[in-house]
Amino acid sequence: MTDKRSPDSSRRIERSRRAIHEAALALVGEAGYRATTIEAIAARAGVGKQTIYRWWPSKAAVLLEAFVALGERSGRQGEGHGEGHGGDEAGGAGERGFPDTGDLAADLKAVMRATVDELTDPAFEAPTRALAAEGIVDPELGAAFVQKLLEPGLRLYEARLRAAQETGRVRADADLRIALELLVGPLTHRWLLRTLPLTHAYVDAVVDHALRGLEEP
Amino acid sequence: MTDKRSPDSSRRIERSRRAIHEAALALVGEAGYRATTIEAIAARAGVGKQTIYRWWPSKAAVLLEAFVALGERSGRQGEGHGEGHGGDEAGGAGERGFPDTGDLAADLKAVMRATVDELTDPAFEAPTRALAAEGIVDPELGAAFVQKLLEPGLRLYEARLRAAQETGRVRADADLRIALELLVGPLTHRWLLRTLPLTHAYVDAVVDHALRGLEEP
Repeated sequence: MTDKRSPDSSRRIERSRRAIHEAALALVGEAGYRATTIEAIAARAGVGKQTIYRWWPSKAAVLLEAFVALGERSGRQGEGHGEGHGGDEAGGAGERGFPDTGDLAADLKAVMRATVDELTDPAFEAPTRALAAEGIVDPELGAAFVQKLLEPGLRLYEARLRAAQETGRVRADADLRIALELLVGPLTHRWLLRTLPLTHAYVDAVVDHALRGLEEP
Repeated sequence: MTDKRSPDSSRRIERSRRAIHEAALALVGEAGYRATTIEAIAARAGVGKQTIYRWWPSKAAVLLEAFVALGERSGRQGEGHGEGHGGDEAGGAGERGFPDTGDLAADLKAVMRATVDELTDPAFEAPTRALAAEGIVDPELGAAFVQKLLEPGLRLYEARLRAAQETGRVRADADLRIALELLVGPLTHRWLLRTLPLTHAYVDAVVDHALRGLEEP
């Protein structure tokens, strides 16, 4: 199985980056954001800490990139069986766009169910919680988390809702930013605060209630 | 101004409890949950640490009680001018019930606007963020936070929605737990993650969108 050729440099670099990402995610999930150090990431990844300092300006930068890479891998894994649109905390639409089958409720449910699976996946949950918790008390990290991990997914929700608005399916006077927050807000609230179980049935009900409205016409 | 009578014991105890609450909230807001110690709370409150150990089983218990007391004070302050229904993170309905003027949207907006004011009040925001962040990574603390601080407020939302359902204003088939999460979920999402500004106009729009629904009938 061993490739006799000397591995080319870009492949070695890619392997090191991935080892560093995985070490960073594992450590932050086990020990929390603050207790995770560049030294510990380097030791666990089997690289020198200077390698990390050469490639990234900060621990936060390593972790954010690790999350982006995790989301991309999760998205690719899902392609074979129509799931795994996720990749970012409560955004859940990853890098591959948002399904548009013409059935808005079904598309939203598919994406949000995949996000539930991801957020309740132990490999994903602990580091995501640790990063989200740190962002809640550290505005600078929080802003990077939102900009790099959360907003790209939210923009895909907004684009899908806009397509539905353009075909007359969503009210012309709906504010699409508010609309997407009616979907991802409850999901995130229930996940972060663990008020009640986060299930497929739950996100289905959120979609149905958000789309139908509550009041009698 | 000095009361010449020896202060009675229950009044002294009440003053000490309040000093301990205020010290705990200030410290957790400044230094975070983990860095706040019983010793530091005692020193700042001007009491012996044995006093704290005698009255509370843990640091978390001190802080949760401090938050409940803060919410109660905030609720009482608001009574004079029709605001300040809040008192718990994203629950916002405090101890005094929920207004029922017959106008569901107006009542929800009044409560949620008061919660916005509270969550953006510096005295409230830093310790609430610190406690929420710790609950996100510590399931036991998170469960206490939800049970003691969050759920009492959420039950008041649910009761107000049920009253509207009983008069036919809210659809008979609406799940009221989902309905309240469509309201407090977006508010909490925007506050915790700081995606966009948390304003009165925002919560008004959330109420209008949640109540009207998005889809064309």
